[in-house]
Amino acid sequence: MKVSIIVIGDEILLGRVTDTNSGFLSRTIDPLGWQVTDVATVADRHDDILDAIDRAMKRSDIVLTTGGLGPTRDDITKQALTDYFGGGLHLDEQVLDNARRLMESRGRAFNDLTATQAMVPDNCEVIVNTAGTAPIMVFDKDGHTLVAMPGVPAETETMFPGKVLPRLMERFGNSDRRYLSHRSLLVGGIAESAIAEHLASWEDSLQEGLHLAYLPNYGIVRLRIDGSGTDKAELEKLMDKTHADLAGLMDEWLLDTTERTLPQIVLDTLVKKSLTIATAESCTGGNIAHSLTLVPGSSAAVAGGVVAYSNKVKQHVLDVKAETLERHGAVSTAVAGEMAEGVRRSCLADVGVSTTGIAGPTGATDGKPVGTVCIAVSTPSGTTSTRHHFPGNRSQVIERATTTALVCLLKQLKQL
Amino acid sequence: MKVSIIVIGDEILLGRVTDTNSGFLSRTIDPLGWQVTDVATVADRHDDILDAIDRAMKRSDIVLTTGGLGPTRDDITKQALTDYFGGGLHLDEQVLDNARRLMESRGRAFNDLTATQAMVPDNCEVIVNTAGTAPIMVFDKDGHTLVAMPGVPAETETMFPGKVLPRLMERFGNSDRRYLSHRSLLVGGIAESAIAEHLASWEDSLQEGLHLAYLPNYGIVRLRIDGSGTDKAELEKLMDKTHADLAGLMDEWLLDTTERTLPQIVLDTLVKKSLTIATAESCTGGNIAHSLTLVPGSSAAVAGGVVAYSNKVKQHVLDVKAETLERHGAVSTAVAGEMAEGVRRSCLADVGVSTTGIAGPTGATDGKPVGTVCIAVSTPSGTTSTRHHFPGNRSQVIERATTTALVCLLKQLKQL
Repeated sequence: MKVSIIVIGDEILLGRVTDTNSGFLSRTIDPLGWQVTDVATVADRHDDILDAIDRAMKRSDIVLTTGGLGPTRDDITKQALTDYFGGGLHLDEQVLDNARRLMESRGRAFNDLTATQAMVPDNCEVIVNTAGTAPIMVFDKDGHTLVAMPGVPAETETMFPGKVLPRLMERFGNSDRRYLSHRSLLVGGIAESAIAEHLASWEDSLQEGLHLAYLPNYGIVRLRIDGSGTDKAELEKLMDKTHADLAGLMDEWLLDTTERTLPQIVLDTLVKKSLTIATAESCTGGNIAHSLTLVPGSSAAVAGGVVAYSNKVKQHVLDVKAETLERHGAVSTAVAGEMAEGVRRSCLADVGVSTTGIAGPTGATDGKPVGTVCIAVSTPSGTTSTRHHFPGNRSQVIERATTTALVCLLKQLKQL
Repeated sequence: MKVSIIVIGDEILLGRVTDTNSGFLSRTIDPLGWQVTDVATVADRHDDILDAIDRAMKRSDIVLTTGGLGPTRDDITKQALTDYFGGGLHLDEQVLDNARRLMESRGRAFNDLTATQAMVPDNCEVIVNTAGTAPIMVFDKDGHTLVAMPGVPAETETMFPGKVLPRLMERFGNSDRRYLSHRSLLVGGIAESAIAEHLASWEDSLQEGLHLAYLPNYGIVRLRIDGSGTDKAELEKLMDKTHADLAGLMDEWLLDTTERTLPQIVLDTLVKKSLTIATAESCTGGNIAHSLTLVPGSSAAVAGGVVAYSNKVKQHVLDVKAETLERHGAVSTAVAGEMAEGVRRSCLADVGVSTTGIAGPTGATDGKPVGTVCIAVSTPSGTTSTRHHFPGNRSQVIERATTTALVCLLKQLKQL
C-alpha cells in the first residue's frame, strides 16, 4: 500500500515552525508495512494544494494531509478539497457541538470563526476531532482515499492512531501480503563511515530482502535492519539471527540492541539497579535533565539536578572548591568531577553526571576552544572525568555534550 | 525568484529523524524576497530522486537538495544527478584533500568510503565543504540552478549562508524588482481564533500587498505582517504604520514587537535591568533552564537552577517546608511559591521562576488532572503564584508550561 503525505502551511514552508506531523504519521504507519513514498510541503495557496492533491492521489492509495484547517485559513484548503472531489459545503451539527463543548471546557469564548470550522464538504465522511475544533475529513475517489487532518501535533497524535488508522486498516487491510520486520541497535564512539567500512563485506553478504540503514545522531548511530518476506515466522527467525550477528560485529561500540532511545536506556538501567540520579550541568544548561525527564515514569530514578551556570552556584550548591576553580579553571576535568560528586550529595542521589564546557560562540580561551566540554560521572564505585571536543554551533555542541554525557553515564552504570 | 527544496533520505521519510534543513534554508532565503514554493521529501531511491529533480527544475529557478550524500549512500543521489544533468564521475583532488584533513583533525581514520565522496560529477561546479567530507555541487541547466548539499544540519548551516547563497545571489540577483518586508509581534493569553475575530475588520481593511500571518506556538502566537511593494521607502513606511496599528489593537496581550524569541526577550529584559535569574523546575525538568541557556550570551543573566524532581530535593536544596508539602501537596501554588523563593537564595539570584505540576501520563489525583501546573515568579518586589491547566501529551504539557512560565516571568519583569 502506498501512502503520500501533504503538509499544508505557510509557517512550515517559511521555516517558522518545524513539521513533526509527517514523521509521526510515518512512524505510526511503518509497522503495517505500508510505504510512505513522499512528503510534499506546500503553501496555504489554493492552486498549490490542488496540484499536490492531484499528484498524490495519482501516485498513492492513501493520501494524508495535515494543516491548512485552522480557524483563520480554513477556507483555502476546503475550497481545494471541494474543487478536487466535487460537492459543496454544509453545516455539520456534530462538529459544531464538539467545537462548542471544547471551547467551553477550555474556558474560551465560542465565536463565529470557530463556527465556520463546522462547515464541511458534503461528500466526505467526517470524524469528529475530540482533541480540537477542526474536523477530520475522509474522501474517496477511484479506490484512493484522502484524509484531511488539522496541523496541530497534539490533535494528529491523538486522532490518527485512535480514529483514523483503524478505518484505513479496515478499508485497505494488508493486501500486499508481504510482512515487514525491523531490528535496531545503538552504537557510540565510532563514525558512520568507519562503521560502513567495518561492515562492508557483511553488508554485501546480506540476504535479499534485508537492508541496513544508518541513522547518525549527534555522536551516536542507530543501525536498523529492515527486512521483508512472505513467510512471517521465517522472516522473524532470519531477522533475529541477522540482529545477533550485527550485535557481535559491533560489540566494541554497542550501547543497546532495542528500539529504545538513549535517555530511555539510561533510565531503565537505573531503575533495574535501583539507583537514583542527579545532574549537574553547566554548558548543557538543563538539557540532560530535560531529556531524561521527557521520558514518562522518569521520576522513579531522577532525583533532580542543578544547573550550575555561574561559578557561585558551582561553589554554593555543589561544593566545588574555590581552589579547584582557581587552579584548573571552570572548564576542567577536576571541576567536572567535583560537580558530579557534589550533586550526588546535594540531591541525595546514588549517581551524579556533570558537564562543564564552552558551548560558544564566545568564551574560548587559550587551549580551550569553543566545543571543549568536560564530562564526569560519579557512582558509589568512584568518579571518572573526561575531556571532549565537539564540532558545530552552540545548540549542536549542547546536543553532542548531552548525548556523550548519557553515553559516559551508561558505560559506568553497566559496570556497577 | 522561485525556489524548490528537495529533502532526500529514508530516515526522514520514515520519521526517524526530523528535517530541520528545509526550514533553515527557507528562513535564510526569506529576506531576499525569493519564494520557497514547495518542499519535497523523498526516499534514497534513484527514480524518486530523479522525478523530484525533474519536477523541481521545471517549476523553480533554484533547486536546493539536502541529504543523500553521506558516505554510505552517496552513489544513489550522484547517479540521479548525472542521469539528469549528463556527464560522469571523476576524482576531485581538492575534495579528497579536504576530507583527509578533516578526518585527521577529528582523530578519525580516513578510509575508502570517505574517499569515494571525492568522486564527483564532472559537469558541476564543486564547492569544498569545510564543515564535512561530502562536497557541495552546483549544476546549471536551461537557466535553472540546482545545488546539492549534504544532509548534516551543522554542514548546511555553515556552508549555505557562507558559500552557497553568495553565489546564488551573484547569479540571480533580485530580478523581481519587488521588495519584501516583514514586521512581527508576539502575544500571549489569547487563542488564535479569538485574535482572528478581534482583528477581522482590521484585516479586511489591510492595503493590497499586505498580509497577516498567525503562527501559534504552545500558548503564544506570533503575528507576522508580510508586505511587498515596488518602492522600498514607501513600503517600509507603510509597514511601520501597520505594525504600530496592530500593536495598539493587541495591546492587552502584547509581549513584544520584535522578531526575538521568548527566551531571548526574557534574557534581554533581565540584562537591561541588571538582574540575574534562577530556575526551580519540577514538571518542566530543566526545559526552562535549557531554553534560556540555548541563547548565546545567556550567562550574563542566568545564575543557574535546580531541577527539583523529588520532594527531598525540593526540601533539601530549595528549603520548601515539609508542612507546605504536607498540607497543599507538591503540585500547589504554595509549593511553587516557596520553590521560586528558595532558588533565589540557593543560587544567589535576583529573580526566581518555578514550576510544579503533572506532565502525565500518570500522576493525576483527585482535583489535579494531568496537565495541572503551578507556576511562580519571585522578584525583589514579591512572589506571585498561579495555577494552570494545559492540554496535550507529556512533551506538550512540558512545552506549554515552559512557555507560560516565561510569559509569567516577563510580565513580572516588566513591572520592576
